[in-house]
Amino acid sequence: MKVRIDFEPVGRRGECPSGESLLECARHLGVDLVSICGGVGTCGRCIVQVVDGEVSEPTPAEGEYLDPKELSEGYRLACQVIPRGTCKVRVPPESLTAPQRTQIEGEEISVIPEPPVDAYLLQLPAPSLEDLHADAERLTEALVEQHGVTASSVDLGVLRQLSPRLRREDWRVRTMVRDGEVVAVLPPEARSLGLAMDLGTTKIAVYLVDLDSGETLASEGLMNPQIAYGEDVISRMAAAVRDPAKAVQLQTLVIDAVNEAVAQMCGEINAEPAEIVEMVVVGNTAMHHLLVQIPVQQLVAAPYVPAIASALDVKARELGLNIAVGAWVHLLPNIAGYVGSDHVAMLLATELAQAEGVVLALDIGTNTEVCLASHGRLTSLSCASGPAFEGAHIKHGMRAANGAIEHLRLVDDRIEIQTIGGGPAVGLCGSGILDTLAQLLQAGVVDPRGSLVQHPRVRSDSGIREFVLVEGDDHHRAITFTQKDIRELQLAKGAMRTGIEVLLKSHGLGADEIDQVIIAGAFGTYINVSSAIAVGMLPRLPLDRFRQVGNAAGMGARLALISRSKRAEAQDLARRVRYIELASDPGFNHTFAQAMRLESRP
Amino acid sequence: MKVRIDFEPVGRRGECPSGESLLECARHLGVDLVSICGGVGTCGRCIVQVVDGEVSEPTPAEGEYLDPKELSEGYRLACQVIPRGTCKVRVPPESLTAPQRTQIEGEEISVIPEPPVDAYLLQLPAPSLEDLHADAERLTEALVEQHGVTASSVDLGVLRQLSPRLRREDWRVRTMVRDGEVVAVLPPEARSLGLAMDLGTTKIAVYLVDLDSGETLASEGLMNPQIAYGEDVISRMAAAVRDPAKAVQLQTLVIDAVNEAVAQMCGEINAEPAEIVEMVVVGNTAMHHLLVQIPVQQLVAAPYVPAIASALDVKARELGLNIAVGAWVHLLPNIAGYVGSDHVAMLLATELAQAEGVVLALDIGTNTEVCLASHGRLTSLSCASGPAFEGAHIKHGMRAANGAIEHLRLVDDRIEIQTIGGGPAVGLCGSGILDTLAQLLQAGVVDPRGSLVQHPRVRSDSGIREFVLVEGDDHHRAITFTQKDIRELQLAKGAMRTGIEVLLKSHGLGADEIDQVIIAGAFGTYINVSSAIAVGMLPRLPLDRFRQVGNAAGMGARLALISRSKRAEAQDLARRVRYIELASDPGFNHTFAQAMRLESRP
Repeated sequence: MKVRIDFEPVGRRGECPSGESLLECARHLGVDLVSICGGVGTCGRCIVQVVDGEVSEPTPAEGEYLDPKELSEGYRLACQVIPRGTCKVRVPPESLTAPQRTQIEGEEISVIPEPPVDAYLLQLPAPSLEDLHADAERLTEALVEQHGVTASSVDLGVLRQLSPRLRREDWRVRTMVRDGEVVAVLPPEARSLGLAMDLGTTKIAVYLVDLDSGETLASEGLMNPQIAYGEDVISRMAAAVRDPAKAVQLQTLVIDAVNEAVAQMCGEINAEPAEIVEMVVVGNTAMHHLLVQIPVQQLVAAPYVPAIASALDVKARELGLNIAVGAWVHLLPNIAGYVGSDHVAMLLATELAQAEGVVLALDIGTNTEVCLASHGRLTSLSCASGPAFEGAHIKHGMRAANGAIEHLRLVDDRIEIQTIGGGPAVGLCGSGILDTLAQLLQAGVVDPRGSLVQHPRVRSDSGIREFVLVEGDDHHRAITFTQKDIRELQLAKGAMRTGIEVLLKSHGLGADEIDQVIIAGAFGTYINVSSAIAVGMLPRLPLDRFRQVGNAAGMGARLALISRSKRAEAQDLARRVRYIELASDPGFNHTFAQAMRLESRP
Repeated sequence: MKVRIDFEPVGRRGECPSGESLLECARHLGVDLVSICGGVGTCGRCIVQVVDGEVSEPTPAEGEYLDPKELSEGYRLACQVIPRGTCKVRVPPESLTAPQRTQIEGEEISVIPEPPVDAYLLQLPAPSLEDLHADAERLTEALVEQHGVTASSVDLGVLRQLSPRLRREDWRVRTMVRDGEVVAVLPPEARSLGLAMDLGTTKIAVYLVDLDSGETLASEGLMNPQIAYGEDVISRMAAAVRDPAKAVQLQTLVIDAVNEAVAQMCGEINAEPAEIVEMVVVGNTAMHHLLVQIPVQQLVAAPYVPAIASALDVKARELGLNIAVGAWVHLLPNIAGYVGSDHVAMLLATELAQAEGVVLALDIGTNTEVCLASHGRLTSLSCASGPAFEGAHIKHGMRAANGAIEHLRLVDDRIEIQTIGGGPAVGLCGSGILDTLAQLLQAGVVDPRGSLVQHPRVRSDSGIREFVLVEGDDHHRAITFTQKDIRELQLAKGAMRTGIEVLLKSHGLGADEIDQVIIAGAFGTYINVSSAIAVGMLPRLPLDRFRQVGNAAGMGARLALISRSKRAEAQDLARRVRYIELASDPGFNHTFAQAMRLESRP
């Protein structure tokens, strides 16, 4: 038995097996519905409106996220709804995993390229009855004779292409050597390209780099397609632990997306993927493990240890990457279960180890990694800030896609909003959420304990107090900011601020002794620092001490790609950083309780 | 449209696509018909008898191998016959690639094991909030602390199993380290096993070895299943060159067979394939390349150079081998396109480099590799002796399977035969062929130029003179020895003897100066040395100078498996052996013409 489902306005329709939930039907038909919890009814993000047709009754889980009025209008959680027959379903824009603004730019640091792969042009004598040397030895002997370079091995993938290639190129080839291994034998005109990837939970940034000049030739920002299996790392790791086939799917999704981005970038600069002879990856420890298909069971249970922390070199072909057959992927080292190589890359890019004075660096995300550097001493920790600033667990939250309110101002009783793309507002992304909280706080609509007070725009129709930002009409739901949202944000900013306080305490410093605050990452790039200070997320310091550096992790990945010294520095950094397990800090509870307060303080 | 085919007496029947040849139908139904040429009608080995049913007319190719009487009796070449409808087909035993007697034993040389993989028992502290080391670093640090061993990397496959394994084994594991890399982490009671393989064109010998003691715990001899694609390396390489998918199939066939043999041997000694942490492979250059999936195009065309000659280390998993996930396969070095690592292994096992005086060593096969060692100077060459001594191109030739005449004596006019298995004769295997030629020569039925003279048993019913060894009856074809067979054998033994003469000449030695002749390989083990001398294949020397050593290549593989010194020696041998390209020897034609004569000479 099949049922016919019509998803609008995306215009996807077709037959789905009966008994499947609307979320499964959507996946079936290629409609990318948001799902943070992976379809178990606990995130409330896959909201759709059943416009026509008979469906199953609302479940208790739906009551948590939708008020009776919304339910009566047909609003439902797609994961909870089983269609009984032909249905017409409206998908609000905020429920789509729409392409999102992705931060790929970062501050540039110039570094002298010392690429890990060296290229040598070789002209070989052709074999004859008088010169019967095997092809591989012919090549390695020419390397010695023509360039004084000793290669002790030839990669198996290269070997599998070597003999035809040498003959096709008439014995004139560009040979790439890495650590004594021949990793590519290419036509003489081939370039040495490298690929750097910042593999984020939500977004992936990839950069195609000329290994010899260090120049970035092309870059792409893309969504991490694993989002379909849950928006946070915990859901994805849980899926991988439950079902090894899911772990494979999660990996394949990323690899396919990267291969596509590589093809796209190569097209732009008229290059071949086979010219990409080296790759560097940075990411949080969960992304790192899932990419390499290392089990994550020990990462989801205390004491949360990685399977491996050191830098790891893996053959690209073992991951399914479509670049040079002999290319290595160098994964920068992790520090701990929740402080991954993206943090190391940020430290590398911001040159924190060389910084003078006291510097605080944050990469804000679902987990916010914070590092305090004082006079060369580095301490890092991770705060479970949660996905609230990425729009999850926030009633009208969404990611930074078109229609998201990115900035908001309360002017008397008027609300000024700025959306991404400039069109009508459909929800709030991270920077908009932060502004809203700061503005309501400053207007006294929210008090420092986080309670919504009386206000003409505050209502509680659905049983929970909420501030109406945008009134609804026949076609759009109202956009509100609820008491529950505020609690989520208090937890999020409280976690971050706790991390900062614990770090300062561990160095015996006060917040006012911080010379510079570096804010990295996409969310960090777009936030209004004043708002972050206003709600007490960041310490109150002169604004000129803050530096928003963009995608520092991606920058660090590129540095490690083109420079052997930077790689060594990364490995050294990872060993040198002292890691604090935040939850085991003795003053944690007290600090956290204080940090929850919404108030600007040094 | 399908046609129904019934193969008897093997009792395989079923439907096959119409238009397929009987050879293809046989493969379809799992009947292992011999096919040397791969189904193009040039080897004459896939003889079957169509007992019932309508089939296509005989082709000219069939006229070459079957006389009119045989054709009238329904004897046909299966590759040439297209069934028109339901058929019943009798498969004579000699047309089946029956399990064959495989030489796996060889002389034992005792060597002190210096295994390339070392095992260390480790007891690790479990991680805790106070000890957050990652699993891989926990392991490598314990290696240093508990055994003073530094491992700089952990194999990716091992890493993918590490975290669950450490926890399942309660942090007590046997850790295998090879060249600074952790290649296996096993339960504490695991053994260190190794696998040695002699990958022959026709036969595969595999040995399961205790790496620590050097003891062979189990062994298996099996047919090389690639035979279905042609019995000689040229046909198989041609197939691989024509169609890359065939190259993959050829590789998969061998891997599947080896995996099966591994499972079998592990069952015998109650071991797990995952305990096999190292493997060594020897074989001719073609088998070597096909196994590793290296292209062979340059091997089939002059000047026949290998893609690689040096020893090669490849991860077992990259070949599809089901042994320890991190295990390496070490392939011994090749010397030239037609002198492969099996020859190096023979040199290693027979300790030819250390031999005193003048020693000649031969491994007789389709290609016969010969090495002359005089006072530490080694020279090798390969003779294209052809498959005649393996029973191919010989009218009633067959491989050494049940029913093959393995020894034969002419006593007056009586013929005494000895068959493998003792049952009725169905054909001649190599040693029987050699005896037949020697006996007919000594009886004067064949003259030194190789012509069959008048004799009561010589007839020429089919237009070609042949000596009747066994008369036919209603159920069996006659077994004969034809003038054409003799020409084939003259070419084969002429090639071998030419090789010997060229080697002696290159060292400035006479045959009578040879102190010892070592004959290796399966055929060499079973031949009557007197017969070989009688026909002039081997020099006439006192019989006590001959040593038949069995599978020396397999022995060499085992030595290289358990001893790092022997590996180094093999690499050194391959470099040190002077290789002569026989065909480019200036006196080749003259020497060959002489060597064709059937006469005993020093």
